[in-house]
Amino acid sequence: MLDKDGTGHEGAFAALEALLGARLNRSQSDRELHGRDEGHFPLMPPDAVVYPETTEEVAAIVRICAEAGMPVIGWGAGTSLEGHALAVRGGVCVDFQRMARVVEVLPEDMVAVVHPGVTREALNQELRATGLFFPVDPGANASLGGMASTRASGTTAVRYGTMRANVLGLEVVLADGRIIRTGTRAPKSSTGYDLTSLFVGAEGTLGLITELTLKLHGQPEAVSSAVCAFGDMEGAVNAVIATIQSGIPMARIEFVDQASAAAFNAHAGAGWADAPHLMVEFHGSEAGVAEQAERFGEIAADFGAADFRWAVKPEERTALWAMRHNAYRSMVAANPGCVPVTTDICVPISRLAEAVEGTAAEIAASGIPGPIVGHVGDGNFHALLLPKVGDAAQWEVAMKLAANMAERALRLGGTVSGEHGIGMGKVKYMEAEHGQGWAVMGAIKAALDPGQVMNPGKLLKGN
Amino acid sequence: MLDKDGTGHEGAFAALEALLGARLNRSQSDRELHGRDEGHFPLMPPDAVVYPETTEEVAAIVRICAEAGMPVIGWGAGTSLEGHALAVRGGVCVDFQRMARVVEVLPEDMVAVVHPGVTREALNQELRATGLFFPVDPGANASLGGMASTRASGTTAVRYGTMRANVLGLEVVLADGRIIRTGTRAPKSSTGYDLTSLFVGAEGTLGLITELTLKLHGQPEAVSSAVCAFGDMEGAVNAVIATIQSGIPMARIEFVDQASAAAFNAHAGAGWADAPHLMVEFHGSEAGVAEQAERFGEIAADFGAADFRWAVKPEERTALWAMRHNAYRSMVAANPGCVPVTTDICVPISRLAEAVEGTAAEIAASGIPGPIVGHVGDGNFHALLLPKVGDAAQWEVAMKLAANMAERALRLGGTVSGEHGIGMGKVKYMEAEHGQGWAVMGAIKAALDPGQVMNPGKLLKGN
Repeated sequence: MLDKDGTGHEGAFAALEALLGARLNRSQSDRELHGRDEGHFPLMPPDAVVYPETTEEVAAIVRICAEAGMPVIGWGAGTSLEGHALAVRGGVCVDFQRMARVVEVLPEDMVAVVHPGVTREALNQELRATGLFFPVDPGANASLGGMASTRASGTTAVRYGTMRANVLGLEVVLADGRIIRTGTRAPKSSTGYDLTSLFVGAEGTLGLITELTLKLHGQPEAVSSAVCAFGDMEGAVNAVIATIQSGIPMARIEFVDQASAAAFNAHAGAGWADAPHLMVEFHGSEAGVAEQAERFGEIAADFGAADFRWAVKPEERTALWAMRHNAYRSMVAANPGCVPVTTDICVPISRLAEAVEGTAAEIAASGIPGPIVGHVGDGNFHALLLPKVGDAAQWEVAMKLAANMAERALRLGGTVSGEHGIGMGKVKYMEAEHGQGWAVMGAIKAALDPGQVMNPGKLLKGN
Repeated sequence: MLDKDGTGHEGAFAALEALLGARLNRSQSDRELHGRDEGHFPLMPPDAVVYPETTEEVAAIVRICAEAGMPVIGWGAGTSLEGHALAVRGGVCVDFQRMARVVEVLPEDMVAVVHPGVTREALNQELRATGLFFPVDPGANASLGGMASTRASGTTAVRYGTMRANVLGLEVVLADGRIIRTGTRAPKSSTGYDLTSLFVGAEGTLGLITELTLKLHGQPEAVSSAVCAFGDMEGAVNAVIATIQSGIPMARIEFVDQASAAAFNAHAGAGWADAPHLMVEFHGSEAGVAEQAERFGEIAADFGAADFRWAVKPEERTALWAMRHNAYRSMVAANPGCVPVTTDICVPISRLAEAVEGTAAEIAASGIPGPIVGHVGDGNFHALLLPKVGDAAQWEVAMKLAANMAERALRLGGTVSGEHGIGMGKVKYMEAEHGQGWAVMGAIKAALDPGQVMNPGKLLKGN
């Protein structure tokens, strides 16, 4: 039966209002703010936005929504790229901005306990005096709850691992409102199913993360960054493969294609050569960093690297990586009147050259811009496809390019997403990548969320 | 209805025989060989042992057993310690000794694809010429399928991680005979639930692992090992805590108490001081190893380390770690007429001293021997409790000591097992460690194995 607002859920909204007062917001503006992420999907606003302050409030919200059969969608910083947090079927968006406290830092255990709304930059700010840091760096200043939910990674995963490796434990509100804790503060455990890993990457479809216990790392004694240019893409990519295979513990090794370098020059004053580049960083002791840098320099030189620029001072490094993190904005600025469609794939390192070159050749032949950058040390790279606004034919070309990238990744033994995740955007590739494994995911979903309350329309079949 | 042998499963055995011929073995001797692991549990033989050679045969075996409602239990090397592979309710033991091939080594991707019956030593033997190795080292020459199923770790996990970090993907036969593949050969992925991590550590209760894709590591350019003695346990443990907190990338850091050192002297001719010791190993470049060793030496000296002995030559190192891996045998030999009960816990590194000292004091007061050794860099240690054979009172004391260790681990924010797992032995602590999380594990089990076919009586509630 529909209520006066047509949602059929007035009773549930009344209960939410009794619980939260003004922290339930049904205004159009707030709903629209929570109906779009940084991807290319159309507006899909929730019916309401709630701002819980405690785990118990989150549990009560989920119970109210579950009883009303109303979807519940978590919201961190809204920086996801595949429509993870869009309200495909309406419902209640749970914005964690009021659960954004660093609960506890335990320097002796190299552990931090945080609320899901804390962003990675806020955490690292708070850690500065401890000599520790949280390494996972997807570029965007994402929330840590969102980063866990999407199994984020980024520039430093080649050295420190993705969220999978850096979440020790979670507090989760399940679809029926129960609160569970996974993991402990001990560095490892072999006591039963790895529920932490199950919720990391589940994109909010099995529950809402309300607290995270994170693994911290010691700030390296010495850090050094560099950029170098290559004569062609092949040289740059082969230098990456050789570097990774040599076992140099790279902290970062990023590929930037010629078009991206041009955008950095135009919009960030990079002053780079008109060529593909690698951006690298070394972490370790003074002697260790020097040794790593020398070995990398030798390998890169073998593949034609030139124009080495070193960033040793902290402010130079900050500027360098800020430019990398703003690549998206620089490229969008370099291509006015286009709709940015960003997509990522990840392949075994031995197939990286084939994957990057195949993708680049196809983009070049397509007639639409598509700069490529990537966390290539992991075999992971992105294309930013830029069809013209309102040009249906170019849009179709962009979609086809993205589909071909996904298929190429699978053909080369890789995965359709190294770090952006599935959300709405890549559900169509799940069967091809996982086969019956996707049905297993569906069975787990059905067992833990039979009412399809948690973030419906994402990741799973027919969900 | 019972058949002539009383099992009620003659039809299923006939089908298994038609499938496998002589690779179905129902002899008492073979059943008894598969009815005991290296733990202290009484004999629990399966009704039959099967020796499949292919994944398709495993799938057919599981289908036959599922239809007959007969348990299916995987068997690798039989080295588990908590009764993981015992046939609590009879059924069919699937011994993977004929699925023991290294299927493929991909040096460029630092990946190996192996059958579950391959042992870690056999894999490393095969990798020698590649410059790569598989680091996870639980001591026993366990099968890799078993190591994945129990989420094994061991001496090198402090540097290279546990099986959780080193399994990239799996092939699994589910309880209904379906075959799935999890993960890819790419270094990371964010495409849906992390099924690899779900099966790693599931102890065969959700399916049988029939193939593993493993992450390999480069053999370090230089390796150096050392042993040093401490005036007391406190000094040794605090040296570990300070070393880990200093960020030195230890490849191994093992604690050996005074009683264990005495057993090494008596049964392996160690010639060590009558004191607690640390055994350490450094991996890296020549310069890196020298730097790490120097820094460790300084820290250890601050805590009273003496009698440093370096093992630089490969054969010296091999002898040193063989002695460590034979600790169990040395200690059993040092305590004739006792029943060995080995148990492990894992705590946050900051609580390690409290955990080890509390445990040691309680063992000392108990009147039964209980040497302590451990992978202390991870906060993980073992007590080998040694009650007299047939002494019910001492047995009860040993059980109480083990229970107190588990409770102490939880009280200190840790876990009741760092690496031995749950099996039958630690089911009683699951509720205390996981609360409602244990019910979530039960829901997943019910969804994927509603007929309770896969390894019943282990890990789960009332299973």
